[in-house]
Formats: sequence, structure tokens, C-alpha cells
Amino acid sequence: MNWEAVLAPYAQAVEELKIKLKGIRKQYEYESKHSPIEFITGRVKPVKSILEKTELRNIPLDGVEELPDIAGVRVVCPFVDDIYAIVNMIRSRKDLTIAEEKDYITHKKASGYRSYHIIIEYPVETIHGVKMVLAEVQIRTLAMNFWATNEHSLNYKYKGQIPSAIQSRLQRAAEAAFRLDEEMSAIKNEVLEAKRIFHRK
Amino acid sequence: MNWEAVLAPYAQAVEELKIKLKGIRKQYEYESKHSPIEFITGRVKPVKSILEKTELRNIPLDGVEELPDIAGVRVVCPFVDDIYAIVNMIRSRKDLTIAEEKDYITHKKASGYRSYHIIIEYPVETIHGVKMVLAEVQIRTLAMNFWATNEHSLNYKYKGQIPSAIQSRLQRAAEAAFRLDEEMSAIKNEVLEAKRIFHRK
Amino acid sequence: MNWEAVLAPYAQAVEELKIKLKGIRKQYEYESKHSPIEFITGRVKPVKSILEKTELRNIPLDGVEELPDIAGVRVVCPFVDDIYAIVNMIRSRKDLTIAEEKDYITHKKASGYRSYHIIIEYPVETIHGVKMVLAEVQIRTLAMNFWATNEHSLNYKYKGQIPSAIQSRLQRAAEAAFRLDEEMSAIKNEVLEAKRIFHRK
Amino acid sequence: MNWEAVLAPYAQAVEELKIKLKGIRKQYEYESKHSPIEFITGRVKPVKSILEKTELRNIPLDGVEELPDIAGVRVVCPFVDDIYAIVNMIRSRKDLTIAEEKDYITHKKASGYRSYHIIIEYPVETIHGVKMVLAEVQIRTLAMNFWATNEHSLNYKYKGQIPSAIQSRLQRAAEAAFRLDEEMSAIKNEVLEAKRIFHRK
Repeated sequence: MNWEAVLAPYAQAVEELKIKLKGIRKQYEYESKHSPIEFITGRVKPVKSILEKTELRNIPLDGVEELPDIAGVRVVCPFVDDIYAIVNMIRSRKDLTIAEEKDYITHKKASGYRSYHIIIEYPVETIHGVKMVLAEVQIRTLAMNFWATNEHSLNYKYKGQIPSAIQSRLQRAAEAAFRLDEEMSAIKNEVLEAKRIFHRK
Repeated sequence: MNWEAVLAPYAQAVEELKIKLKGIRKQYEYESKHSPIEFITGRVKPVKSILEKTELRNIPLDGVEELPDIAGVRVVCPFVDDIYAIVNMIRSRKDLTIAEEKDYITHKKASGYRSYHIIIEYPVETIHGVKMVLAEVQIRTLAMNFWATNEHSLNYKYKGQIPSAIQSRLQRAAEAAFRLDEEMSAIKNEVLEAKRIFHRK
Repeated sequence: MNWEAVLAPYAQAVEELKIKLKGIRKQYEYESKHSPIEFITGRVKPVKSILEKTELRNIPLDGVEELPDIAGVRVVCPFVDDIYAIVNMIRSRKDLTIAEEKDYITHKKASGYRSYHIIIEYPVETIHGVKMVLAEVQIRTLAMNFWATNEHSLNYKYKGQIPSAIQSRLQRAAEAAFRLDEEMSAIKNEVLEAKRIFHRK
Repeated sequence: MNWEAVLAPYAQAVEELKIKLKGIRKQYEYESKHSPIEFITGRVKPVKSILEKTELRNIPLDGVEELPDIAGVRVVCPFVDDIYAIVNMIRSRKDLTIAEEKDYITHKKASGYRSYHIIIEYPVETIHGVKMVLAEVQIRTLAMNFWATNEHSLNYKYKGQIPSAIQSRLQRAAEAAFRLDEEMSAIKNEVLEAKRIFHRK
């Protein structure tokens, strides 16, 4: 299987989405507005992980397109409120269609994981015509991302079976991350209020 | 005037078009096919040049959007035939609309300039909604690009009034570039024929 | 003053240091080792900030080179221990000299700020020969960076005079960030121990 | 063999050299001077080509470091004279050592190939300390590069055995490229003379 050729449209979707979201951040900067985007990362799922997943779910190799997260983009926000600003921005875009939304912010996972996931359908122009690909956009705060990155490493280390002692530590860390976001959100409101008072003068 | 904010959609169009065309080149490579794209460059017209042009044409500053070449992308091809492959690829894309085509390949300019120009309308998602911007795509061979780059420098040096002695030298250079393209085109055909014979066996 | 030309060696130092540190991260990945680098950012101090600082410190404009942070690079680490791994790596490099170190990890600032700063002397090849420039490398964990980014915005908003009510909130946030790092550090040790046990078998 | 890890220092050398040479070009621009650099490209030799070469030359796999062109950087210049400006700039740099120079400009190859090659020793900081790697810098004009790119494709197609009919066509193309460079060089001189006259007034 020529994986480079098969994955090219997904890699292309990731590149285009990254450029598009980075452009959004720059526009906020140029207009001296608070940007709800701190940074953007993206990746194509490694072939090894794709094979593990297709095997696990009994998906034939030519059904790889069903996997919703071969193309993945992550938007990291300064504040919790910013997550919903990004969600609304994505919902209003004309260059993609939303296939599914999962709100792990309001409904956090048992592990402590918090993030907003949107599966989108995104058209990519290829040398064989337009191809519609699925891509997953994950939206989280810096604190959520920090926690999730570490949990991901541990999950990888322990092959999904994190010992319960470590699991409960991870939970405590998740709570600390949550508290950090709460404190920061409160500060954000004060900043905005300070500005509102200033402009009323 | 906040030029960074005004030019942001044009800069965005250039970035997106570059990423999209680079993706096309990669796809040819991944499928082991001859790529009609050698390299891609892009630029936003400098503010100084925009001001010179609006003044020259008596365009008010808020009519800057009429200028078709604020966003500019250049596709450089190995062979002359490749130019038309690119033109067809652009015509078939669903993510842009063609506003105008100028074929300075078949009808070269008096100066010796050769290139294929396409003005496109390209939708950019901004923080204020979708904005349609004009962009100019220039398509040329390496030899045409080499010549045009040098002519551009001389034009800039002499403020558009290249002395006739140098002009005639430039013409001779243009002819040499043209001959180079002709020779290379002939070789391209032989290469393709050699491959056709090989595959018939 | 031609600021682009004056700042070119600093911009160059930032670009080179970023490429060099990104290379270090890749090497850890290629050898399947834990990378002490999560990500790297860099920036040249904006001209406006340079002018404010030279004015404040009564530095003449041609003494701009004395400022140690015109070129700035930030290394963000997953864990606290990783900070010292980076410090040692920088100390052992042959392509730069350390001018000064400030350990705001062991000795955090009153504001709650934590970070390790290294001022380096870095040689840049210019079109006028080698030029030695000063650059500041800031090394912090993700949690420290998250907190510092927000504090920086507030400082900017309040022009260095953050109201005490918000200041005490920031302090609480700094403590939460600190606790997060502590929890994560503990987990890191368990991960390493788990691996050590595994390898003893 | 973990090729990614083995080739990492070479990839690093290419990235650093590209950033360094791009910086040189920017400095000429910022100071409004003619830049002898039009563009820079770089690549690490593909593993397949490395294996073919080690086999051909009977080099054991751990002797891969002897190959002088695993890391390759190409500097493309507008004019022939610019090539020697680049050669002098490289000779004067303190961050590398020259191991060998080959002047295929003055002494073109039988095939018609023209280019200036410099083999350098370049120190790369790795996670195991400093490693000295060999890298090849190729310096050519746009016309030489155009020709060489096409000859390379044909050589690849015909596995080094280009039929003599095509070979003689390539030769004619090489002559046309040479003539183009000659014409352009003459124009360059006139431009410089025009400027000298202007400044004498």
C-alpha cells in the first residue's frame, strides 16, 4: 500500500486547516483584539496507529476513510470561554461541514479528560478531483492541553492500562488544572470589566 | 490606515494558495508522476506599490480591492506544456472562480515577456465573515521566470524606461530563453516516447 | 534608523537557535527517548518596546546592543526536571557562551513568576563579518508558561500596576500551577521507576 | 538500521545552512543591496541513493559518513559573477571549514554541466555532543540550475545512459543556457556602469 499517496489528502487537510486557523489568530492581532487562539498544532495519524485501529474495529484497509481522526488539528486557547468562541467560528465557516460535536468540557471523561471535539468534512482538491475527508478538531485550554499531553504519554506507556495509583494522581492533577482554568477565567472577566469601565468614561 | 488589517485577507489568500499548490506537487511525487510544478512563490504587493498604483489609476484608497494583483502567486514549471496542465488544473478547481485569463505565452509582450496570467476570485474566511478577494496566478517555465526576474529588476532600476540598447539585449536574452524552452520541450517529448515504447513491450 | 537592518542579526540568532533546539527535540524522538523539550518559540523585541527600554534606562540608541533580550527564545518543557536537562545541554554547547544565569525556579519572583533564564553570547555571520549578539533563553514547564503568558497580558493591560485584588488571584493561580507541576513530577518518577523495573527483568 | 537517527545530524546541517544563507539574502535586502542569492534549497540524500552509492563504492554501512553529499545545499544566483561572491562569503565564514572546492564553471563537465561545488565540514550539536558532518554546497546561476535540473531527470530516467541523440540536444540546450548567462552578465555590467556614472555626477 502506497501510504504516502493514501494519506496525502489528509496531510493536505491538516496543512490547510493549520494555515487557515493561524490566519484567524493573526487577524485578531492586527485588529488589536484578544485572540481566542493561543496556538495550533496538527498531525496525520501514524500508519502504525491506523493499522492498530482498523484491526481493532475490523475495518478493511480500503475503509480507512471511515476513521474520523486520520487528520487531526488542535486549537489551544488561553481561556475556557475562548473554546466556545472557536466552536462558533468553526460552525459559521463555509469551507467545511460539521459531522459531529462532542463536548468533553461540560461532560468531562471519567479519566479527567476535558476538550471540545468537532468532526468536520473538509473538501481537498487532489490531482484526481475533489476528495471529501474527515478531520477532527480538538479545542482546549492550555491547562487542559498540558494535562492531556501527559495523560496521553502515560496511556501510551501503560498501553491504556494506567495503574490505579497513578490514575488517581492524574485525577488530582486534572482537578488542579481545572482550578487553574477557573482562577484564570475569573481574572479574564475582571480584565474585560476593567476595560468596559474605562470605555464608559 | 491599518494596512496590516486591510491586507490580511490577501496575505491569507497567498498562504492558502501556496499550501494548496504545494500539495498538488507532493501528490504527483507520491504517485511517482512527472510534476508540472517545479516550485511556487507568493507575495502580497508592498504598500508602497499599492499606493503608486492607486494614484496612477485615480483609485480611492477604499477601492484597493479592485486591484487584481495585491495577492500574487507564481507557479514555475519545468516545461512549456506543463503551463497548460496547470491552467487546466486551476480551471477545474471548485475552491476558486476564474475572473480573467491572459495568455502571454502564445501572445508574448513586445518586451519579450512570456507568462500565463489568471485572475481568480478566492473566498477567504475572516473574523468578520467570508471575504472574496482577487488574486493573480502567474504560470511560467523556469527559463521565462529567469528572464522575467531580471527584466523586472532592470525595469525597477530604470523606472520603466529601459534604454533601447539594453532593451535590445534583453530581447536577445528572451530569444535565448525561448530557444532553451524549445530544446527542452523536444527532449521532454523524447522522454515520454521512450517511456511509451518501454511500456508497449 | 533602518531598524530592519539593525535587528537583522538578532532575528537571525532567533531563527538559528529555534532550528537548533528543534533539532535537539527531533533527535530525542528519533532515538525513542523522552524529550525534555515540548516546544520552542522565539521573537525579536518589537521596536516600540526597545525604544521604551532605552529611554527608561537612559541608553543611547547606538547602545541597543547592551539590551540582553532583543533576541529571545523560549524552551517549554513537560516536567520541572527537564528544565535542568536543558540548562545542562545549553551549558555544554560549543556554539555559544553563557553570559549570565538566573534561576527563578528555585527563587521564584514575588509575583509568583517561575522560569530559568540564560543570557548567551551567540555569534552571527553577517554580510559585514561575524557579529556577537546577546540572546535570552527562557526555560519553563508548560504550567509555568501558561501562568506567565496570562500574567504578561495582565501586566501589559495594567501597565505593570496590576490591582492587588487581581494580584492575589494571580498568586493563587501560580500556586495551582505549581501544584500541577508537583503532581506531574511525581507521576514522571513513577513512570521512570516502572521502566527501570521492567528493564531489570 | 535506524536511518532517521543516523541521518538526523545531516538533516540538521541542511536546516541550519538553509536558515543561515536565507539570513544572508535578507541582510542584502534590508540594506537595499543587490543580493547574490536568488533562492536556496536543501535536501538529505534519500536512503535508497545512499545504499546504491555505498554498494557501488564498496563502503561499509558504518562508513556512510565518508560520503560528502548526504547533506546538500544549493545556492542559486541571478548572475555568474554572484557565484564567486558566494564562494568568497563561504570561504570567510567562521562556522564551517572548507574541505574541497570544484570549479565546474571555469571547467565545465563533458555533459555541459556547470556549477561550483564546495565540500564543507560543519559542526552539529547533537544529544551525544558535537558531530562534524560533511556537506556539499552547490552554487549556480538560474540558467545553470534550470539545465541541471532537467539533465538530472533524464539521467535518472535513462539510469545514467542518456542516448547520444538526446545527449547532443542537451549539449545544445547547455549552450543556450550559457548564452543566456552571457547576455545577462553583459546587462548586469551596464546596470552597474549606469549607476557608477550617476554617482560621479
